Formats: sequence, C-alpha cells, structure tokens
Amino acid sequence: MENPEVTVSSCSAHDDENLCSYKRHSSVSQEALLEDQLRRKLKFFFMNPCEKFWARGRKPWKLGIQLLKIVMVTVQLVVFGLSNQMVVAFKEENTIAFKHLFLKGYMDRMDDTYAVYTQTDVYDQIFFAINQYLQLPNISVGNHAYEKRGAEDTPLAVCQQFYKRGIICPGNDTFDIDPEIVTDCLYIEPTTSLDNTTMGKHNLNFTLDFPRLVAVQLMFNLKAINLQTVRHHELPDCYDFTLRIVFDNKAHSGRIKISLDNDIAIRECKDWHVSGSIQKNTHYMMIFDAFVILTCLTSLILCTRSVIKGIWLQRSLTSYDVCSILLGISTMLVWLGVIRYLGFFQKYNLLILTLRAALPNVMRFCCCAAMIYLGYCFCGWIVLGPYHVKFRTLNMVSECLFSLINGDDMFATFAKMQQKSYLVWLFSRIYLYSFISLFIYMVLSLFIALITDTYETVKHYQQDGFPETELQRFISQCKDSPNSGRYRLEEESSASLFCCCNGCSGHI
Amino acid sequence: MENPEVTVSSCSAHDDENLCSYKRHSSVSQEALLEDQLRRKLKFFFMNPCEKFWARGRKPWKLGIQLLKIVMVTVQLVVFGLSNQMVVAFKEENTIAFKHLFLKGYMDRMDDTYAVYTQTDVYDQIFFAINQYLQLPNISVGNHAYEKRGAEDTPLAVCQQFYKRGIICPGNDTFDIDPEIVTDCLYIEPTTSLDNTTMGKHNLNFTLDFPRLVAVQLMFNLKAINLQTVRHHELPDCYDFTLRIVFDNKAHSGRIKISLDNDIAIRECKDWHVSGSIQKNTHYMMIFDAFVILTCLTSLILCTRSVIKGIWLQRSLTSYDVCSILLGISTMLVWLGVIRYLGFFQKYNLLILTLRAALPNVMRFCCCAAMIYLGYCFCGWIVLGPYHVKFRTLNMVSECLFSLINGDDMFATFAKMQQKSYLVWLFSRIYLYSFISLFIYMVLSLFIALITDTYETVKHYQQDGFPETELQRFISQCKDSPNSGRYRLEEESSASLFCCCNGCSGHI
Amino acid sequence: MENPEVTVSSCSAHDDENLCSYKRHSSVSQEALLEDQLRRKLKFFFMNPCEKFWARGRKPWKLGIQLLKIVMVTVQLVVFGLSNQMVVAFKEENTIAFKHLFLKGYMDRMDDTYAVYTQTDVYDQIFFAINQYLQLPNISVGNHAYEKRGAEDTPLAVCQQFYKRGIICPGNDTFDIDPEIVTDCLYIEPTTSLDNTTMGKHNLNFTLDFPRLVAVQLMFNLKAINLQTVRHHELPDCYDFTLRIVFDNKAHSGRIKISLDNDIAIRECKDWHVSGSIQKNTHYMMIFDAFVILTCLTSLILCTRSVIKGIWLQRSLTSYDVCSILLGISTMLVWLGVIRYLGFFQKYNLLILTLRAALPNVMRFCCCAAMIYLGYCFCGWIVLGPYHVKFRTLNMVSECLFSLINGDDMFATFAKMQQKSYLVWLFSRIYLYSFISLFIYMVLSLFIALITDTYETVKHYQQDGFPETELQRFISQCKDSPNSGRYRLEEESSASLFCCCNGCSGHI
Amino acid sequence: MENPEVTVSSCSAHDDENLCSYKRHSSVSQEALLEDQLRRKLKFFFMNPCEKFWARGRKPWKLGIQLLKIVMVTVQLVVFGLSNQMVVAFKEENTIAFKHLFLKGYMDRMDDTYAVYTQTDVYDQIFFAINQYLQLPNISVGNHAYEKRGAEDTPLAVCQQFYKRGIICPGNDTFDIDPEIVTDCLYIEPTTSLDNTTMGKHNLNFTLDFPRLVAVQLMFNLKAINLQTVRHHELPDCYDFTLRIVFDNKAHSGRIKISLDNDIAIRECKDWHVSGSIQKNTHYMMIFDAFVILTCLTSLILCTRSVIKGIWLQRSLTSYDVCSILLGISTMLVWLGVIRYLGFFQKYNLLILTLRAALPNVMRFCCCAAMIYLGYCFCGWIVLGPYHVKFRTLNMVSECLFSLINGDDMFATFAKMQQKSYLVWLFSRIYLYSFISLFIYMVLSLFIALITDTYETVKHYQQDGFPETELQRFISQCKDSPNSGRYRLEEESSASLFCCCNGCSGHI
Repeated sequence: MENPEVTVSSCSAHDDENLCSYKRHSSVSQEALLEDQLRRKLKFFFMNPCEKFWARGRKPWKLGIQLLKIVMVTVQLVVFGLSNQMVVAFKEENTIAFKHLFLKGYMDRMDDTYAVYTQTDVYDQIFFAINQYLQLPNISVGNHAYEKRGAEDTPLAVCQQFYKRGIICPGNDTFDIDPEIVTDCLYIEPTTSLDNTTMGKHNLNFTLDFPRLVAVQLMFNLKAINLQTVRHHELPDCYDFTLRIVFDNKAHSGRIKISLDNDIAIRECKDWHVSGSIQKNTHYMMIFDAFVILTCLTSLILCTRSVIKGIWLQRSLTSYDVCSILLGISTMLVWLGVIRYLGFFQKYNLLILTLRAALPNVMRFCCCAAMIYLGYCFCGWIVLGPYHVKFRTLNMVSECLFSLINGDDMFATFAKMQQKSYLVWLFSRIYLYSFISLFIYMVLSLFIALITDTYETVKHYQQDGFPETELQRFISQCKDSPNSGRYRLEEESSASLFCCCNGCSGHI
Repeated sequence: MENPEVTVSSCSAHDDENLCSYKRHSSVSQEALLEDQLRRKLKFFFMNPCEKFWARGRKPWKLGIQLLKIVMVTVQLVVFGLSNQMVVAFKEENTIAFKHLFLKGYMDRMDDTYAVYTQTDVYDQIFFAINQYLQLPNISVGNHAYEKRGAEDTPLAVCQQFYKRGIICPGNDTFDIDPEIVTDCLYIEPTTSLDNTTMGKHNLNFTLDFPRLVAVQLMFNLKAINLQTVRHHELPDCYDFTLRIVFDNKAHSGRIKISLDNDIAIRECKDWHVSGSIQKNTHYMMIFDAFVILTCLTSLILCTRSVIKGIWLQRSLTSYDVCSILLGISTMLVWLGVIRYLGFFQKYNLLILTLRAALPNVMRFCCCAAMIYLGYCFCGWIVLGPYHVKFRTLNMVSECLFSLINGDDMFATFAKMQQKSYLVWLFSRIYLYSFISLFIYMVLSLFIALITDTYETVKHYQQDGFPETELQRFISQCKDSPNSGRYRLEEESSASLFCCCNGCSGHI
Repeated sequence: MENPEVTVSSCSAHDDENLCSYKRHSSVSQEALLEDQLRRKLKFFFMNPCEKFWARGRKPWKLGIQLLKIVMVTVQLVVFGLSNQMVVAFKEENTIAFKHLFLKGYMDRMDDTYAVYTQTDVYDQIFFAINQYLQLPNISVGNHAYEKRGAEDTPLAVCQQFYKRGIICPGNDTFDIDPEIVTDCLYIEPTTSLDNTTMGKHNLNFTLDFPRLVAVQLMFNLKAINLQTVRHHELPDCYDFTLRIVFDNKAHSGRIKISLDNDIAIRECKDWHVSGSIQKNTHYMMIFDAFVILTCLTSLILCTRSVIKGIWLQRSLTSYDVCSILLGISTMLVWLGVIRYLGFFQKYNLLILTLRAALPNVMRFCCCAAMIYLGYCFCGWIVLGPYHVKFRTLNMVSECLFSLINGDDMFATFAKMQQKSYLVWLFSRIYLYSFISLFIYMVLSLFIALITDTYETVKHYQQDGFPETELQRFISQCKDSPNSGRYRLEEESSASLFCCCNGCSGHI
Repeated sequence: MENPEVTVSSCSAHDDENLCSYKRHSSVSQEALLEDQLRRKLKFFFMNPCEKFWARGRKPWKLGIQLLKIVMVTVQLVVFGLSNQMVVAFKEENTIAFKHLFLKGYMDRMDDTYAVYTQTDVYDQIFFAINQYLQLPNISVGNHAYEKRGAEDTPLAVCQQFYKRGIICPGNDTFDIDPEIVTDCLYIEPTTSLDNTTMGKHNLNFTLDFPRLVAVQLMFNLKAINLQTVRHHELPDCYDFTLRIVFDNKAHSGRIKISLDNDIAIRECKDWHVSGSIQKNTHYMMIFDAFVILTCLTSLILCTRSVIKGIWLQRSLTSYDVCSILLGISTMLVWLGVIRYLGFFQKYNLLILTLRAALPNVMRFCCCAAMIYLGYCFCGWIVLGPYHVKFRTLNMVSECLFSLINGDDMFATFAKMQQKSYLVWLFSRIYLYSFISLFIYMVLSLFIALITDTYETVKHYQQDGFPETELQRFISQCKDSPNSGRYRLEEESSASLFCCCNGCSGHI
C-alpha cells in the first residue's frame, strides 16, 4: 500500500555497538555502509505517518486526504439518502391512497390476507375499481390525473388470462386441458364516464369462466406532481404511476388473492412556473458530486484496493439499486478504513490485533458449526415445513434458526407449531430444545473462549515482543529514532557516516 | 469403522535407535520381527484416509462415497421438500377458502376466537353452511366439486351429539343425567337445492336441545384438481377434501367454539388429457431414488451405525410424517458426518475436540441445572397457572422458562400476569426475577467457564501431547512416516529388514 | 442434619505411624485411646450415606424416604394442578361468554379499550345488559340459570353512585361539591320479562346525572353445572357466578370504562343422579393426600429445615392462593434437595461447589449493580413516565429495564417513545443506549469473569485439596477407609486396639 | 473532595526502624520532625470516613448528610412522580375521549393509520366534528364545558391553508404555482346550535379547493375539572384543553392524514366550595421541598461536583421537561454516590475497581467498534432505507442495529424486508447475517475478554499490592494505625516524639 519512493541517498550506516566499535578500529568497509543504507530505507518504509513526519518532515497528506474523503463521502451519502427518503415516502403514501381508492373494503394492514372467495365478489371488485377510476377526478384528494396520449386520456385495460381449453371435472377425477394461456383484454376510456352511470355487468360485456381463469389484471397509468418540495425551495418533480391490480387464480384453490402494484417513474416536469426564489439546486449538487469524485480519485490512485471499487462506481451505474449498494458499501469501507489509523495507538492496536488474530479461528470454527447448522436446516425444513409457517422455505428456516441462536422470539416459535400429529409435535420440541441448547451453550461459549484466548496471546506478544520475521530482525539493527534526523534525504555521505559513529558513541 | 484387511506381509521391523543398534550387534530375533510387524499394521490401521493413501497408495474411495452420499441425499431431500411445499400450500389455500365460504362472518386470523354465544347464532351458522354447500358450484371461484357415489353426489351430514337423558337445573343445584352420548344425523343432498330455496328452520326438521347438546358436526366431501403443476410441466394431481365443521359444546359454558377441519388425500387422476409436452416425471424420480438408495446401501455396508437407520428407512415407511422425520434426521446425520473429515486438519480438530471434551461436563451440569429448572417448572405451573396464559400446561411452562433464559419476550411475560391477587402477583415477580437472574447470570456463565477451561486444556494437550494409552505407546515406537513406502504389501522380508536398519541409521 | 447416635464403644484407637510406633514401645495410654475414639466418631459423622453404609452397614433409608417424598409430592402436585386447570378453563370460558352476552358490541381482545363516550351509549349499554339478563334462558347456549332465593329468582341490581351534591362549572373555573358518595339502587326481577317487552327509558324510571355520577354497577348472580367431568367419570360440580358490570366514571374524563367481573364459587351439587359407573373419587384422593402427608411428616422429623415449612403447610391453608404458593415452593425445594445427592459424585460436586462459592461474590456485585439500577429506575420513571407507556409506574420501569438487560423488545421500547419534546426524546436515547451498554457489556461480562474465576479456584482446590479447618486436621489423622470394618459398633476394645496397630503396620 | 483543615500540630514524627534507631543515637533534627508531621497529615487526608473517626474521633457527619440526602431526594422524587402520574393519566383519558367524540369512525389503536382518501370523506369529517362540538354538553359524559370569553363561549375556528395560486396539471406535466400559503378561517359559535339543526354544506359556506389545499385545521378550547383528587382529600385542579384537529394534505398524495392534538394547561380553580375536611396540602409540600433544598445545599457546599448541578437546578427551571430531567439525573447521581461508600469494603471494592479499570479499555474498544457500526449504519440506511421500514431514518437504523446486537426481533427484521429486487434482498441477507455475526460473536466476546482480563489484574493487585506512586511511597513510611491515637490534634510535641519512639520500639 505504501509507495516507498526510494530516492538515491548517500551512506547512512548505523550499527549496534559491537559492530561499530569493531568498525572504528578497522577500516569502514563499503559493503557495511550499503547494508546500513538499506536497513534505514526499509525502516522508513515501515514507519507510520506520524513517524514519517518526524523522520523526514513529510506531511501526512495521505491521511489528510483520507479524512477529507470520509467527510465528503459521508456528506454525499447523507444528501443522497435524504432526497431518496422523500421520494420513497411520496411513493408509499400514493400507494396506500390507491389501495383505499381502488380496492373495495380495503383496510390498513390487510395486504397479506386481502382476497376474495366468491364469484360475485370478483365481479364486484372489478367493477368497483373501474368505476373509481372513471370518477377519479371527483373523488381523489391528491392531484392525480390520467395520463394523456396525445389529446385523449389513456384507457384502463381489463385483461383476463385463461387456459385455451379446459374441461375440469374433479367429481369424476377427469380433466382435459390445453395449458397454453390466452390473454383477452377490454379497454375502458375515462371519457365514457361523463354520463355518470356506473359500470357493471349490464353495460360491460365482460364475463369470467372461472374453471379456466388464471388471472385478471386491471392496468392503468396515473400522473402526479410532488408539490411538497416547493416548501423546501426545491423544484417539484413529476411522477408517473403504473398501476396494476392483479386477481391471482393460478392455484384454483377457491381463493383469489388481490394485489395492487405501483411502479414509479420520476421525471422533470416539462413546463412550470413558480413565483418566488425557488430553483432546482441540482447544479450545486453536481459540482459537489464532481468534487467528491475528484477527491475519491486522488484517494484511488494511492490505494489499489479502493481503485477496484472506484471503477465499479464509475461504470455500471444504470440501476438505482446497484448504485445505492455500491455507494453504501463504499461508505462502509471508508469508515472501516478509519480503524487502520486508530491502530497507530498502542492500546487501540491491542484490540484490533485481537480481532484480526481471532478471525481465522472464528472462521474455521464457523465452518464446523455450519455443518451442524446445515444439518438442522435441512432436517427442520423437511419435517416441520408442512406444520410451521417459519419453516416453509429453506431460506426462512435458516433465518429462523439464526434468530433463535441470538435469542429471538422463542416462545412464539414453539407456540406456532401446529399440533396435528403428536409424533411431529414431539419431534419439534426435541429439535428446538437441542438446537438452541447446542448453539447457545456450546457454540457461543466456544466463541468467547476463542476470543479470550487470542486476547491473552496478543497481550503477551505486545508485552514480550512479537515473534520476529527475518526482515524485522534485519531492520531492527538500525536503532535510529524517527526524529533523530538521520532519515532526511539531503544528508551527505560523510555527514551520515559521522552521525552513524556519533549515534554509536551515543549508544556506548 | 475401519476394516484393516491384515494381509500376510513379511518382516517390516522398525525400532528406535538403541534397540536397532543392539540388534545389529546381536542376531535378529524372530520375535522382535513379529512385534515390529504388528506395530506397523496397527499404525496403518489408525491412519486417516490421506495417510493411508500415502502409505499404501490406497484410494480414499470410502471418503468419495461419503461425499457422493452427502450430495445425493441432499438433492433427494430438496426434491422431496419442494414438491411437498407445493402440496402444503395448495391444501392451506383451500382450507382458508373453505373457512371463508362455510363459516358466517369469518375473517382472517380469527381461528382462536371464532365462537358463537347465542342459540339463534348457532342455527344461523348451521343453515348458512348448509346453503353455501348446496350452492357451491355457483359460488366458488376454485374448481371444487361434490364427491360422487355412483351417479349421485354424496350428501352433507348434519350430526348432533347429545346426552341420552339430561335434566339440568343449576338453579336448584340438581341434575339427573345419563352420560351416554347419542348421535343423530340428518343427510342433505346437493340435488335438493335445485329449486334455489334457502334451507332454514321452516323446511328442515332440525332442532337442538341445548342443555343436552354436546356437539354438532357438519361433514361433507369435496374434490379438486391442482392445475398449478401444469405450468411446471408436471401432471396435475387429484385431491379429496374431507371437511368437518364442529360446534363444540362439551363444556356447556355458554360458548360454542366453531372449528373447520380439512383432511386431504392425494391421488392420481383417473382420466386425463393434456395438450403439449407435459408428462409426469415420476419415472425419472424413481430411478434417481433407487440410485440414491443404492449409494446409501453401499455406504451402509461400510458403516454399521448407518445400517440401523437404513433398515428403518426401508420398512415402516407407511406414514408421511415418519418418512419425513427419518429422511430429515438421516440428512442431518450425513451433514454431521462431514465434521469427522474436518477433524483431519489440526486447527479444526482443536475446536471439535474442545466441544467433544466439554460435552460430558456440560451434560453433567445440565443434570444439576435441570433439578432447579424442574423445581421452578412445577412451582410456576401450580401457582401461576390459573393467572397466566403461558403457565397453563407443564409443557408450556417449560417452553416459557426456556425462552426466558434465552432472552425472549420478558416484559410481555411480566405484563400478561393477571393482577387479581396481590400475593400471587408479588410471587410472580419474585419467581421471574429470581429465575432469570439465577439462570442467566449463574448458569449461563458457568457454561462459558466450562468451555473456556476445556479449550485451555485441549490446547495444552495439543501442544504438549495427549496422555498416551498403552496401545499408543506400543505403536509410537514405529516411526515410519506414511509416505516412507514401508507400508506397501509387496515388500520382501529381507528388503524390509534392510529398510528398517536403513530407517534407524537414518535416525542416527 | 446427621444424627450421630454416639453409642458407648470400646477402644478403637488408630494413629499415624510415628504415634503408633511410640505407643507400641511405651504403654498404651488411656487418653490417646479416647482421642482416637472421638476421631473415628467424628469421621463417621461427616460421611455421606454411601460411606456410612460401607462403614457400619447402615441402610440409607433417609435417602430412600427423600426419593419417595420427591415422587409423592410431585404426583400430588400434578393431580392438584390438573383438576385446577379444568376449573380455571371452565371459569374463563364462562367469563368470555358473559362478556359476549351482556356487553353490547363486545369483541374478543377488546377488554383494555372497552369504553363508551356518549350519554346515549351509556343508557344503551345498561338497557342492553338488563334485557339480555331477562331473556337469558332463551339466549344462552350454556346451562346458565338464575339463582333462587326460596321460590323466586334473585333480581338484577342496578346501582348508581354519585356525589351527594355537585355543581360543576368548568367554564367559570368554579365548583361546589360534597364529596360524600350516595348509592341508589334499582332491582329488576327476571319474572318481569314474561311479557317479552324490552326494558328501556320509557318503562324504567332510571336517569343518570352525569356531572355527579361516579359509577354505575349492574350486579346479578348466575348458576351453572360443569357437566364436562361426567365424561371423565367424575361427579360434576355446581358453580355460582357473581357478576358485576361496572361503568367507571371516577375520572370524569369523558370516557366511561366498562368492565365485567366474574367471581366464582364451587360447591358440591345438592341432589343428583347419574346413570352408569360414575362416582366422585375424592375419597381415594384424600387417602392419597393423607399418605403423602404421612411421608412428608416422616421426612419432616428428620429434617429440621423442612419442619418449619411443614408447619406452614398444615395450618393457615384457608386461601387457595396461599395453598398453591406453599405447595409450589415446597415442591421446588424438594427438587432442589436432589442436588445435594448429586454432590456425592466428584465431578458433579465441582459444578455445584462453583455455584455455591460464586454466590457471595455475585450477591455482592448485585448490590453494587442495584445502586446503578435503582438510579436509572428513578430517573427513567420521573423523566420518561409521562411520555412512555412502559415507564408509567416504578414497578414497570424496573421490569422494562430488567427485560432490556436480557435482550428483550429493544426496538419497540425505542419506538414507543412519544416524540413530543425533542429534549426528552434525546434524553430517552442517551438513557437507553447508556443503560443497555453499561449493563450488557460491563455488568454481564463481570458476572462471567466472577464465575470463571471461581471455577478455576474451586478446580484447583479439588486437585490440591481444600484449605483444612482445625477440625478437619484432627479428623484426618484417622485414616481408616469406610469399608475397613473398624466403624462397626459391636467391636471389642482389644480387637480394635489390635486392628489399630495392624492398621499402622499396614501403613508402615 | 476532602477538606483537610491542616491545623498547626506539634511534632508527631514517626519513622521506620532504621531511621528511628539512627535518630535515637543522634540528635532529633527539626527537619525530620516536620517531614514526619507532613507524612501524618497526608495519611490522615487520604483516610476514609471510618478511619478518620478512629484517628481523630471525627464523626462521619458528611456520610450522614449524604444518606439523609439520598432518602430525601428519593422521597421528593416519588411525591413529584406520583402527582405527575395522575395528571398524565387524566390528560390521556381526555385525549382518548376527544378522539372518540370528534373523529368520525375512530377506533382504538388507529392513530397511525387514521386518514381519509376521498373528497366527500373530508367534508363528512369536518361537519361531523363541528356538529359534535356544537352538541357537546348533551353528548359528553365528562364535565367538559366551552371556554368563556366574558359572557359568551369561544367559537370553533375552521381554518384552511392553501397555496395562493395553483394550477396543477399532472396530465400535461405542467404546473403554475405561487408557494405562498394563505390561511382562511371560519368561526362557529356554540350558541348557533340551539335550534338543533345539524351543520353541513347546505348551511355553511365552506368549500375546499383540493389541488391548492395544504391543510385544514379545526381549533377550539374546552375546560374541565379533575374531580378525582377530591377522593384523596386534595383540592381539584382546573384544566384548559386546547384542541386542534389537523387534516394534513401537504404531500398531495391522495391521502389526508387526520390527527388530534390536545395541549393542556393546569390552573388552580378560581372559586370553589368543598364540604368536609379537604384542603390543598401544597403548603406542607413546599415546606418539605424547602427542607430538601436546604439539605441539598448543605451537601452542595461539601461536594464541588454536586454544586454545578445544584446551580442548574436552581435557575432555568421554567419547563416541566427540563425540571424532570434535572431531578431525574440528580437522583441517579445520588444513588450512584452510594457506590463510593460500598467501596470501603474490601470485597465490594474489587468489583468496583474492576469496572473502573476496565472502563478505559471498553471505551477505547467502543471507538473501534463504532467505526464498523457507523459504516454499517450508513450502508444500511442508503441501501435498505427504501425497502425496509426500520431503515427509514439514520436514527432508526442505529436503534435497529443496536437492538439486533442485543438479540431483539431478528426474524421480524428479516421478514419485513420487501422482496421487490432480488439484488437488494440478497444484499439485506448478507448485510444482516454479517453484522449480527460480527458483533455478537466477535465484539461482545471481546468485551468479555476485556473484563475477565481486568478482573484478573485487579485481583492480583489487591493480593500483591497496587503499584505505588511517589506520594504513596512517601506516606507509607508512616505506619501508625488510625486508632493508635497519634492523629489527635491536642497531642504535645514531646508526647508525640515519645510515642514515635514507642511506636518504633513497638515495631522492633
């Protein structure tokens, strides 16, 4: 990571006492001088920024850039996040409003169970949604409007999907089916509602053949303007909502689930006029963004690790999700980078070293624990899946077990088990008790033992010295302190030779 | 577990230095040679697969089969689980639909509290369910049909159970009862509803004598076909639903609880026709299953432990639950078996050994803790049972306390206590505070102390050597490394004698 | 606890080698003999039951009684608990039914928020309950009946409580009040409802003066018989329900909370007739109970500690709650007593000793932690009480904080904070973060440190011997093993003298 | 904290043996005497209260005042808290009643989702609230009255806020807006309702222009008297409620959220008359408060730390919230102060010292962990914010993550993630698994390692002595025990010289 920039410097040999006294009595050999020089350069290379400043007066501008980067990336992220937060809130409020407007009898927090069970209810729901759409301007309290295609409003599409052929006789255990799915659509234009009659079976030629029916979809587009930002002296954005109400009969189970999806697109409004001092501060934002990117680029050149992430950040930023994930991860990494600087302090270092030293053992142990964990996952899924809602999919089993280890929601997990079969009920008890006990009492305790042990080891190393590598032993012969002035590059060969001996005599 | 296959091999004596130098000076005694041979065979026997490969070039095909088994068992389990998941989902959706169709005023998440309290409500509920049944084909959005017995549909049975004789006068504290229960049924055929009149008190000769009434049951069968699988290019299955709506008045408490049970049977459809390339891939499945069983059998022959479970797996597999439990447990054991192979690596071994070594102490301590735990269980059940819903049954008390130890739902547990009697309320506080403190602060901490201590012990053993058994000391005199080539079976007696001395001189 | 029964036995001196050789050369002094005798008796006194059996062949019948006691007390508790469980269930079901019958518009899980807010609603609720009461026999699906006083049914009492005088003018900030409370009752007899007219304002002379009104109470009695037990071949019990519907206007806040209380009394039915082999197995129960008490008494005589609890158990058992608390605690103590017997095994002992040794330190530390805890409790109550529902009372604050330490419901606790004042909101965050961090990271960790340290200490004591007391050092000079036969009481003086020397020579 | 009051005392030299024997043989130098004197004074200065009592008979009256302070501050806090609790309860009950009276179709626990979605609903809500207000005296069951301004009641104000100009055409993506907000009010007096006609569109000139509408506010004042206190023999207070019903259309999202705010002011009633012995015990309270302040002041003079807080407590107490925060914190500090006195006992001290010694390391480690934590916070906010309700604001992210570390609500957190984008869903899983594992397994374990290590260190220090400072080494030469009597101030120079030698000879 460090870019040594080994400049050609003259002799700066410095040895330990014995070697030096020997040299004073004999001739100063050229070889020893070079060895000395190398040692000093290496030692300088491995210094931390503070020491480098003392040794050669080099300003820790890399550290400065690092800190600047942290501040700027965080500011950028906060600005991005805040504006994003407002967009999300606007979209959610609109979605809630649409659900109340277009779904008959909808109440808050019903999304999971919102469904119809009889044929008449299906027709009622469809006609209700159509009529609400036709009367929208008179009903809605928001500023919703139909999308325009040229001069006229875009129509609402009622599409039904059904099997091409299907004669289903469950009473005889027989069926004759062509699984190809045919889609049939009906378009209703908002203007047809001017005469204020309600739409229904009598005036819409619309029937459903339930045994063949796979799904009904109502699709329409609405537009709105988010005026809220006007109050924060920002320019309002224009929103396009693509709504889709789906009646899902794929399962033919007697239950048709109804869901309302709302896709959103944000655009700048075409033509607008606002009184007063309001303006879009996008330009300032862009300049700031550019500045952040510049700072990051400077940081990138210094730090190879960051470079790779930086390249990711520059291209590929088509989707909002990818963008936010990259931005989020990079901010996290920037913050994690601060830990490196905390490591320059002795006491902080102890803790960081412990974590770093314990990591391999923890990972290794996680491997072993993962085997047991996976075993429990598969076993729980296959046996308890049909009887327990938290064990339906492998993914949920894993989340449920992971949560249980960390002390979550245990009684509820026990209680939600259906008591259909005594054998399975008994199994679930043994399964849960053994899993929780094993992981909380054995595995978690062993983690603590691992960390405690590593902490002790690292602490003793710090007191008694770490086991030295060949390189460290070579360097350690050079005992000049960073602020001894012997690392400065403008020094002459003779002067450094002199100071070497000086240093030795100082040691004696 | 290892099958040594001790083949007759010639002399392959190998001793430590002193012994060998003595032998070279004296005559090579036959006895020492045999002892040597035994030592080498024993050492080979206790090697792990990698070392065996180095020693005799033996391929670790047992390990390979083990790995193959893991992959295949897991694949089989996933296939089984996924198909099972779909069946469960179809059944649950149908059950929800039936509840909405046949229970008047039913709403989602009401199952626990769904009950009626007045006589007219009971009649309303019964006639509502009957009428819905009669009009089912016109109402249901699923492909439900009546079951046919010959040409005609099976009727709905309305059965009431009541005490044979019962004169109950609570006002006088007197009663005269014959506890024998009589069942009286009424059958209503779907065809009777053709004239579209609704059934009710006026046209059904049906009255209930509430003081004697124990239960009313509505029983009927419905059929359906799960078309969903057509879309995944699988053949649809036919389902038989046996529905039973129970009005439970056993308690005579003024509250009649209503529940709907839905039993399911899956069969292949009799007569079907599907356009396109759809087919039942059962045959491929069966071939795969057979292959898995073959692999498992190979593994079984090697591994006695697995054999027992394998026998269980072959017979007795009548019930779905038993089957899934056995399949689940066997998969879990297969995964746990992987840990054994991780143990061949030194660092992984440390962690596994710690867990294994700590287990007896943990079990021992669990015994002690269990005494305190049982004491608290009984005490909590008897005292708090009437006042706290989580302490109603011994089983629930145990689950509640176990959850509390692991940090679950504490405030809610405190809060749910009824504040009827101050004494009991005070007791509950002391009980909960003392139990939680004792187990979390004392017992859990001691678990950690146990594991930490064991970890230290095992670590020192690994560094300084485990205490040797008599056998290990005998074997350890043979110091040939696995890849020394001395374990190969084609070696001649003389050659091995030579190499023995060679080895010794190598040691000197 | 042990009752030594020091019988007059002859010389049984036994010394260590030096002492013994000295004695053989000199005359056996009478004093040394007595000292020896004392030593042996003391050693016997401190033996555990197994060793006593080896030493004198004494059967461990105390241990047997202890085990018998555990079994019997647990059986008794389970029988008591099961019958109790059924009574509680019957009462609860009836209470739910009464709420649905007498409270207008009542739905499940509404108890906390069930209230009325307008004057007409109050009248509606009162007249609804009265009419339901009058028509009860035609409505209820349970076997409820009016209580009879002589020949006629007891009436329903409608009582209103109001301030004797009260002129309240909040508009002028003036009031004139006589806080004495007057109660005025109206009695309605069930027979008045024979003409099937509904009661209401028009035919009941009943008006409420809301500014003076403190409460309205509707009180009536109902009777029922729990027939359920007939099915378990037990005799049904008769139940008296005392119902009280309270309209609480104490606060005059515009909200009148309505609650329904149901007190229960269980009696044997007066006159009954059941066909078949049903009978009350009370007699068997009583014999069993007596037997348990006998066993317990035997145990009591042996064990002073238990005696005190036994005396409590015999008298004072008037209330059900006191009875169940005593029964529960005694069962818990009996189970805890088992731990003592586990302590006879070396390895179990280690764990029990650790817990016992750590207890004082843990208690001590709890004192310190309690100071911080109390400080937080008071501070949280006074500051957050008005804004957070979990901090309303000191008791709830304590429960909430205790739950938080143990990992419960943290996000919800954060979220429930009302965001009225920014200052208080900020305080709540600092308060919660600091409390949780302090207790989970510092206090809980110190508990673990305490236990780990104690475990190490106790383990070393067990390996190297505990520090001996003066008494132990005196006893330890007697080195006879329990099964040496030297503790038997029929031994002669000479024989024991001989065996002493024998023992010594054996030692030499 | 200790105020040594070094009085002029005569010679009280006391040295160790060598020094003393030297002095006895030579002349007693004046310098050594003074040194001795200083040593003794310093030692006295560092004694704890008990030792000071033994040394000079000084009564530990500071400790007494401290204890008195604890009792009084706690009593004051409890009294304050209890009265406060009643006020809060009264206010909350009234707010609930107002919501039920003035919000159409309001039900309990609907506050979060209470909103309207159609234009007619908005008008309905407004006219409902107006009519309820006009008929309040005939409806309310509490003693609510209109506020009077002179002779007449204050009117209800219906104010609508709208953009001065606003032509919004989302269909064309165009708008023309003047963001200045205009407020237009309508006043309705209670007296207008005497003719019992209901208010509505027909007789109120009130229309809303929804595209321009920002908010509608209904504001009115009500008064009430809290009679409840009469029953506790306290004088009732008069309450002014300022109610404001807000229809919030800021977002123009189609959803108008309705909220009811209730501000409260408490005053003494003007004119009242209560029969019986009721009186306001404010005077006693004030005397008690004054006494507490006096005690605190005494304590303040002694304790500089407390002084600063005391000054805060005296001024600035305008707001209730500030007052309660200061009162709460001071009570907490008073309780924390008790720990200092527990520290005088050896065994308690060990635990307190451990916590104190571990604190710097824990804080240091928290710094490192905070970096990782902040990184995760920012990352989670930006990526998961739009998809997960717990990650909406940075503050909530922090609370959610902190709760997760401590074992809260994990499965629910996993489950609440919206499954819109697979990429984000995958990220959320990695994010949560890694965060929880890292913090629970690594960070929490390291905390335990830190505390365990500190505990060991402090324990060894306590056994072997703490490392001494220069000052302690100087003082430690004076070996007089506190109760030796040598610290008393009335001692003569000669006597102390004599006792010094005495002490030394005693040492020899």
